[in-house]
Amino acid sequence: MRVTYADIAAAHERIKGAARRTPVLTSSSADALIGAELFFKCENLQRMGAFKFRGAYNALSQLGPEERKRGVLAFSSGNHAQAVALAGKLLGIKTLIVMPENAPKVKLDATRGYGAEVVTYGKDEERETVAARLAKERGMVTIPPFNHPHIVAGQGTAAKELLEDAGALDMLVVPCGGAGLLSGCAVATRHLAPQCHIVGVEPAAGDDVTQSFRAGKIVTIAVPDTIADGARTTAPGSVTFPLVQRYVNEMATVTDEELLPAMFWLWERMKIVVEPTGALAFAALVTKKVKAKGRVGVVLSGGNVDLRWAAAQFGKH
Amino acid sequence: MRVTYADIAAAHERIKGAARRTPVLTSSSADALIGAELFFKCENLQRMGAFKFRGAYNALSQLGPEERKRGVLAFSSGNHAQAVALAGKLLGIKTLIVMPENAPKVKLDATRGYGAEVVTYGKDEERETVAARLAKERGMVTIPPFNHPHIVAGQGTAAKELLEDAGALDMLVVPCGGAGLLSGCAVATRHLAPQCHIVGVEPAAGDDVTQSFRAGKIVTIAVPDTIADGARTTAPGSVTFPLVQRYVNEMATVTDEELLPAMFWLWERMKIVVEPTGALAFAALVTKKVKAKGRVGVVLSGGNVDLRWAAAQFGKH
Repeated sequence: MRVTYADIAAAHERIKGAARRTPVLTSSSADALIGAELFFKCENLQRMGAFKFRGAYNALSQLGPEERKRGVLAFSSGNHAQAVALAGKLLGIKTLIVMPENAPKVKLDATRGYGAEVVTYGKDEERETVAARLAKERGMVTIPPFNHPHIVAGQGTAAKELLEDAGALDMLVVPCGGAGLLSGCAVATRHLAPQCHIVGVEPAAGDDVTQSFRAGKIVTIAVPDTIADGARTTAPGSVTFPLVQRYVNEMATVTDEELLPAMFWLWERMKIVVEPTGALAFAALVTKKVKAKGRVGVVLSGGNVDLRWAAAQFGKH
Repeated sequence: MRVTYADIAAAHERIKGAARRTPVLTSSSADALIGAELFFKCENLQRMGAFKFRGAYNALSQLGPEERKRGVLAFSSGNHAQAVALAGKLLGIKTLIVMPENAPKVKLDATRGYGAEVVTYGKDEERETVAARLAKERGMVTIPPFNHPHIVAGQGTAAKELLEDAGALDMLVVPCGGAGLLSGCAVATRHLAPQCHIVGVEPAAGDDVTQSFRAGKIVTIAVPDTIADGARTTAPGSVTFPLVQRYVNEMATVTDEELLPAMFWLWERMKIVVEPTGALAFAALVTKKVKAKGRVGVVLSGGNVDLRWAAAQFGKH
């Protein structure tokens, strides 16, 4: 279950034409603010608004004919749901997404908009139980949100593109939930830029990977309460964690209070809409939780944010 | 005072390395909404957040040593001010910006942040009078916001890049204030894609170019009241209008009420911050004021919007 650079290069070939090669933006204002030369990999401008499409498309396109016929299932109320739905639509694979019944209507609609069937579950039911029952009943393949080598390899293509487009980097800073993006980017970066200092950033309330990284073993936390909804994971996985241990140099965290102004700075100064999770890496640089040096790659992982929510937050921040 | 494609090609060489080659984004959601294949030229991601930097840099870099020493003056409370200030900073030319004393503090600060001296005038004074007096006193060259061949040629580089990056276009839709951007883009496009249908879009309240286009002569209107603050012009100029007459196929207008939802659609679905003026062209397509056909270039001219204002508007729209 190891993931190597060859897996990422193969994933990159597979997703070509389907995933977007997202732009790498620079900003002299950001450079002045941080005191380093920053290269922003804009996965908020990826299809469906987040890097998740890379991994989902890479995973679905490797299914055999029999599995494709049966279809795939994912449980997520976030970007993974839309990523699997869109990848399925493009590949002609039926998709079933399991979501909590109280998921925002905008997310239910968006996922259905990509052609997925959505099944909701009540607050008295366990998501895993519902998903397992449905997968068994329908004989569908479950696509996990991060803990799978095909998902990790797909996410790693973001760092491959960034290094190809920005050139050598001294440091790479990546948002971290279950570490699918972080571990994939770490594999690609360690191969292409061996000396690069690789940092993962989590919300302070959801520091499962940071705790695990420091303990040297997987630590499980309670479901975290954070505005970084893409990083509400309770533990890294058996695929992602060994890669983090092997290739990542540093883990850092930022609080929601630190995250929000950094996020709006990106909106106001760089003219891009970034979701809270997507702004984690940049927030760590703004707050000096991570000390930037030289040429720094900053992954902005997604831009799926409810503008109504953002408008309300803006009034408060 | 004609502007030719050769002027635009020369301007493009001049601004290389200083101006950004902004990305051309695509969106399957936008294509589905409009029923055409759209290519968004993202000048909101240009330096200082708008296309204005292209023209300002092109104009300032053509000043002689004597003029450079004396410095330049511009009157603007908007993107032109920041464009001239930044171009001056990069070229080592002193800049003086004349702004109304009630201009938003954020704009005063941003302009000063680029190193410009800012002089404000009260509501009892005429902007032109103040500017003319200062220009005379200090011997400075005035850089007009749109009605100058060097400004027009600089703005035309946006369409040149768009056509180079997107390939052949059947239609090009461009926001229009004083028609600096529109006329420059029209010159470039008529040369590179002779059959392309070229459309300018104004706010309904500020339809000076549309009225002039239809009347076949320059029509002057009262200072318009519109949220599209980059298009509050009262008349096209002696340089821009003949180019509009010669090369533009169609003019259209959208109301502020039509503009706002189209602008927020770009924020929410394409994850980019676009200012009201910047969303004019897209709004005309959304509302079918302009009927899209085939491969359509859409210029998003800028992204300088006060988030506090936008958050308040979002609650209302």
